[in-house]
Amino acid sequence: MSITMRDVARAAGVSVATVSHVVNDKPGARIGEDARRRVLAAVAELGYRPNALAKTLSQGGSRFIGLVADAIATTPFAGQIIHGAQDEAWRHGYVLLVANTEGNAAVENDAIAMMLEHQVRGILYSTWYHREIDVPTPLQHTDTVLVNCFAADDAYPAVVPDEEQGGRTATEELIAAGHRRIAFVNTTSPSPAQTGRLAGYRSALEAAGIRYDDSLVFAADSAQEGGFAVTKAVIASGASGVFCHNDRVAMGVYDGLRERGLRIPEDMAVMGFDNQDVIAAHLRPPLSTVALPHYELGAAGVRTLLGLDPDTGTDRVLVACPSIPRASL
Amino acid sequence: MSITMRDVARAAGVSVATVSHVVNDKPGARIGEDARRRVLAAVAELGYRPNALAKTLSQGGSRFIGLVADAIATTPFAGQIIHGAQDEAWRHGYVLLVANTEGNAAVENDAIAMMLEHQVRGILYSTWYHREIDVPTPLQHTDTVLVNCFAADDAYPAVVPDEEQGGRTATEELIAAGHRRIAFVNTTSPSPAQTGRLAGYRSALEAAGIRYDDSLVFAADSAQEGGFAVTKAVIASGASGVFCHNDRVAMGVYDGLRERGLRIPEDMAVMGFDNQDVIAAHLRPPLSTVALPHYELGAAGVRTLLGLDPDTGTDRVLVACPSIPRASL
Repeated sequence: MSITMRDVARAAGVSVATVSHVVNDKPGARIGEDARRRVLAAVAELGYRPNALAKTLSQGGSRFIGLVADAIATTPFAGQIIHGAQDEAWRHGYVLLVANTEGNAAVENDAIAMMLEHQVRGILYSTWYHREIDVPTPLQHTDTVLVNCFAADDAYPAVVPDEEQGGRTATEELIAAGHRRIAFVNTTSPSPAQTGRLAGYRSALEAAGIRYDDSLVFAADSAQEGGFAVTKAVIASGASGVFCHNDRVAMGVYDGLRERGLRIPEDMAVMGFDNQDVIAAHLRPPLSTVALPHYELGAAGVRTLLGLDPDTGTDRVLVACPSIPRASL
Repeated sequence: MSITMRDVARAAGVSVATVSHVVNDKPGARIGEDARRRVLAAVAELGYRPNALAKTLSQGGSRFIGLVADAIATTPFAGQIIHGAQDEAWRHGYVLLVANTEGNAAVENDAIAMMLEHQVRGILYSTWYHREIDVPTPLQHTDTVLVNCFAADDAYPAVVPDEEQGGRTATEELIAAGHRRIAFVNTTSPSPAQTGRLAGYRSALEAAGIRYDDSLVFAADSAQEGGFAVTKAVIASGASGVFCHNDRVAMGVYDGLRERGLRIPEDMAVMGFDNQDVIAAHLRPPLSTVALPHYELGAAGVRTLLGLDPDTGTDRVLVACPSIPRASL
């Protein structure tokens, strides 16, 4: 059984991030002397050796980081995670081994086995949409960082988008454009995006002194068809602006508004989420939205694995979702 | 200087595909005895050794195939090529080393150098849209297959979509739906897609006994905006159906038709090209289109490198673009 940073973290009673900082010996990391001592003691007791060192000392040559991704073939999101992870890995002398699983468990196990065989420094395990996962068992055998997903009880370090901040930002943009009666078309799928974006919507309203009104929150399938179907109810609610769970829903709302001869943004302002380029930038009018930070998720995943970011003492890294203003508000 | 299959092919006066079949010793390949002899003579004279053998004999362990791709982060197309290449590589005991360049030449050179250092069996060099390229110089040092692109004079083996067949299929679908006056919105960008799809459009008309009419062929930027702008002229042409250069153009045509209160397909049938899922499947009505075969391009690239397909004596492999019927005809 391989010993990983996670085992060391458990034995020392600290986060994996803290272990990573100690074993990678980052000069800038502010780790308390006590924590450092406990980590080093656990490293010695358990016999932990980062693969990078093992590889460099015994063989020389390139060092690998593995990236297991689903849905490379069906969304550009996985590609953006790869792009960010590759840039960051190369910057630090690592080659990224990428495996695309399209959600197939057998392929996933093969991919992880292949990466372990290549003595990867660690594995980034990523999903194309933000969700809780059951971490595949073989990932216990190497240093693992979850990207765009997380394990129950934060059992593994995870880098995820800040859904609540994103929902707050989206709503704030509508408020800044002068809207007070703002509908929110949420998804019907239970997910961190569902709860986080709603929480952000509520917190932005509250900060602006606008009373939260349950009748302005709708549930729709998170696709064009869902947005189209819910448009009638959104109009009937008397809202002057609508924050859509994602850009595909916004695309359906566009269709629903147009079918009724309503103009965007004059008759209804529309805010999206995701910044899915092929949609958001090219709707008529171009869609104002909030970006999911996939590139940064991949880059931050590598930095977390290598202990390059300041230690926050937690193993859940939240990455901000920036506003992308266009012409629909 | 490394000797590659291309050098052997030149010396023996045969295609790279033929060399690949001989050196990979495929039992099913029908290679003439004379060609086989010349290939083996050139292999001996030049001292060609496939890296796979070198690696297996001297070190054991995994064998790599490299895939250099642009635009992983910005389109799902590159992801589908990766998916197909990975499946096919794994099937034959190879691990795919993927590098994303986003079109950056320095990154590209680094990626190729990294792959050569890892003694890849060969490199697939792929682009996200079909075009002629200047092949990066370092690719001379290994067996290279171009995927979704090609070199002048077919100096390297290339696997590309059959644009002409795709254009013919798209037009045939409109004819089969009863249309005789069919507009074609082509792209303004010179490309194999521009010439191939037009040739296919013309050949389908001719086969159906419909006279080609230059005034039914339009040029537009190959994006939503271009499709929207050209819609007025398409309507004025008196066409009852329109074949759009790609799905994004079709999306713009949808907007242009809707703005004028015209129904799809009753007032105008619309045919796309690409099968870009996030658009094509979710427009209202869902868009009938022709798929670019990215998965198959990746898979066929690996098979070409490894000499697994029957030898056709040519180094340009055309992959068919299948019809994807939905509801816009």
